[in-house]
Amino acid sequence: MRQSTLFGSTLRDVPAEAEAASHRLLLRGGYIRQLAAGVYSYLPLGWRVLRRIERIVREELDRAGAQELLMPALQPAELWRQSGRYEAYGPELVRLRDRHDREFALGPTHEEVITSLVASEIGSYRKLPVTLYQIQTKFRDERRPRFGLLRGREFLMKDAYSFDLSEEGLERSYEAMRQAYNRILSRCGLAFKLVEADGGTIGDAGGTHEFIALASIGEDTVVSCESCDYAANLEQAQARDFPLAQTENFGTVADNDACPRCAEGKLRLTRGIEVGHVFRLGTKYSEALQARATDSSGEERTLLMGCYGIGLSRLLAAIAEQRHDERGLVWPQSLAPYHAHIIPVSAKNEVQRHIAEQLYDRLTDFGFEALLDDREERAGVKFNDSDLLGIPVRLVVGKEAEQGKVELVFRDGRGGGVYSTEEAVNRLQDYYGEGTEA
Amino acid sequence: MRQSTLFGSTLRDVPAEAEAASHRLLLRGGYIRQLAAGVYSYLPLGWRVLRRIERIVREELDRAGAQELLMPALQPAELWRQSGRYEAYGPELVRLRDRHDREFALGPTHEEVITSLVASEIGSYRKLPVTLYQIQTKFRDERRPRFGLLRGREFLMKDAYSFDLSEEGLERSYEAMRQAYNRILSRCGLAFKLVEADGGTIGDAGGTHEFIALASIGEDTVVSCESCDYAANLEQAQARDFPLAQTENFGTVADNDACPRCAEGKLRLTRGIEVGHVFRLGTKYSEALQARATDSSGEERTLLMGCYGIGLSRLLAAIAEQRHDERGLVWPQSLAPYHAHIIPVSAKNEVQRHIAEQLYDRLTDFGFEALLDDREERAGVKFNDSDLLGIPVRLVVGKEAEQGKVELVFRDGRGGGVYSTEEAVNRLQDYYGEGTEA
Repeated sequence: MRQSTLFGSTLRDVPAEAEAASHRLLLRGGYIRQLAAGVYSYLPLGWRVLRRIERIVREELDRAGAQELLMPALQPAELWRQSGRYEAYGPELVRLRDRHDREFALGPTHEEVITSLVASEIGSYRKLPVTLYQIQTKFRDERRPRFGLLRGREFLMKDAYSFDLSEEGLERSYEAMRQAYNRILSRCGLAFKLVEADGGTIGDAGGTHEFIALASIGEDTVVSCESCDYAANLEQAQARDFPLAQTENFGTVADNDACPRCAEGKLRLTRGIEVGHVFRLGTKYSEALQARATDSSGEERTLLMGCYGIGLSRLLAAIAEQRHDERGLVWPQSLAPYHAHIIPVSAKNEVQRHIAEQLYDRLTDFGFEALLDDREERAGVKFNDSDLLGIPVRLVVGKEAEQGKVELVFRDGRGGGVYSTEEAVNRLQDYYGEGTEA
Repeated sequence: MRQSTLFGSTLRDVPAEAEAASHRLLLRGGYIRQLAAGVYSYLPLGWRVLRRIERIVREELDRAGAQELLMPALQPAELWRQSGRYEAYGPELVRLRDRHDREFALGPTHEEVITSLVASEIGSYRKLPVTLYQIQTKFRDERRPRFGLLRGREFLMKDAYSFDLSEEGLERSYEAMRQAYNRILSRCGLAFKLVEADGGTIGDAGGTHEFIALASIGEDTVVSCESCDYAANLEQAQARDFPLAQTENFGTVADNDACPRCAEGKLRLTRGIEVGHVFRLGTKYSEALQARATDSSGEERTLLMGCYGIGLSRLLAAIAEQRHDERGLVWPQSLAPYHAHIIPVSAKNEVQRHIAEQLYDRLTDFGFEALLDDREERAGVKFNDSDLLGIPVRLVVGKEAEQGKVELVFRDGRGGGVYSTEEAVNRLQDYYGEGTEA
């Protein structure tokens, strides 16, 4: 891609209300643009990163044996009444009426739809267990949309639902998703904690887990032990492990308190962003919507469900929140919008332009996607923009171009160097490896 | 994929209101399910076909130099008021209010959003021309949703928008999209006609084209000449070429009338489904939303726009409408949900089961996606289901399995035969070719 024609500009200034670093940098880099409070467009750069996340999510869910489908955003209110959530969900549920005055909700989640679908498709143990997922746009009318993609009103989510005949089956399905989530977030280069969480109103207490991206801007608090594997969100820690705290005063769990599990380690309170959630739902929805199947002995049973969500757009922002410095974004190689950023230092230098074009063609031949800064801008502007965009590898075509050499610079600071164009391509191949997400 | 665990059942009966063959077969084959009038879920098989269409669309638009992004479904009513369409669009526009009582529309199309985005991102000729596209869910509250995916209220669409400084530029952008559409529809195996169409209220009369899939169930009528390349939709033909007809009585253009272009050929009236539309928009939206840029001489100009849509879910149904027989669907190789359908005739025969499994593994190793019918069903049931699903190649593992042989059957009736498993794999490779969509 030639940068001169790339849609989306870098910005110097962003609105003062953009408090989160990810929000500021994604706006400044031309990754996203706000259309309304909590409603964003993904410009080509942002969309490319999102597509890489999507691909990792698909690969890992397919590997775990889940099947992809796509359900509608428009959901009849009647279905939501059957589960009892039409009223219970409150003002976060976006409601509308069609031209015949029939009521609909815009799906913030799909338990009702998937359960009624499974109820009509599956009648026997032979078709079970099954885990179904979709990558789909969700709507939630947040009271206070904020932090850009971190708390939006329209967002991209991967939601999955498992259906089993037995508790043991549900355990296996749940565990498979938990592992898939670990792999997904690791491949996305995220630093995260798996914490025990209360299921709130829809899961079995103690039986759900949250995947929390560590970030100071996060709205969740994780209580974890320095010595053992104890990790819970603050609500769960207080409700289950510090019951006294609950009756007295919230916030009494503090740094350096003794771990309630191993009693030896000290607790640490850290802030984070919930990027994924795995729930044991049990029979809440399958009872309401009559999703049953006969087991191998011919007896009819109500299906046991699990539900599993990852906010894809939120994940993108959480990664940006973790991977940036004062100059801009620093994408992990698995999510880079482009593999390499080629920058001829002087736009007017014929040799540099020629070498840059040659390099661009060669990288394309090798299956890499490169961004070529062919703009007539000063070197300083180009380097600043490159830092801001955060593509992992930069190939600078400067004075050494006369000797057919270019400088390879890694955005994350690891050692680069000056190489012949051929060597530079080899280095790039080494960096992205055979198993690149390219 | 093992068919025993594939989500979605084949059905014998479908609702009587399913008039269109595509609607009936997609329901019967377990490709789609209705959630509400004009609102459908795509089960795994249907979603796989849709993803193949998506991929072809992306490849051809990227090849044409268009850039992909993603815009929101939730659009502030204010934007639609600026273009004058908030009232003009009528009851087809889905409207809602958020918790703060602000008005929104659910996008049936994105001219307003893309134009305001371009207005803020592009100020100079240096960034032009640009063509932007998205693959996104649209909402249109049809008065009479019908024919399954052919006329839905929530549907998947690829919409593209071009921005140019000059008429010549718009011509080039328009032509590039027209060619991309030709390639997309050809690769999807569709029989279609490119017809001249009136732009209705948003384009320049005579300057827009529709891509019409030939199908008797279609709601559009195409008037085309047997001798020359004259082809127009009925409205355009009547309005422009048969002005008398318009003042007298609609429908007076008939089969065998003389062609208004070459005067020699006879006209034919055929029914069809509009699957794509390319429009010259001119400055309608760029004026209303102030999308301007300076040209190379420093003069400010209002941008010239084109817009280009393909209904992906409608295209899927149109292909099913064209490619079926009395037994079921007959997918073109480019869109097959699976490349091969492996059917052991007798589920209880150990040799057959073993050969079927071996074949399944081998195909997987070669990068093919196969569906293995491992269900304990009678051969007749399996063959009927296979006909219904319409996977292009069937590999029947029957009596010849004792000699390590399988029968290869093409769903579209072309010659198959009995081959060793190795030869069968070779035949499959020949059939899908190097340039397979696999």
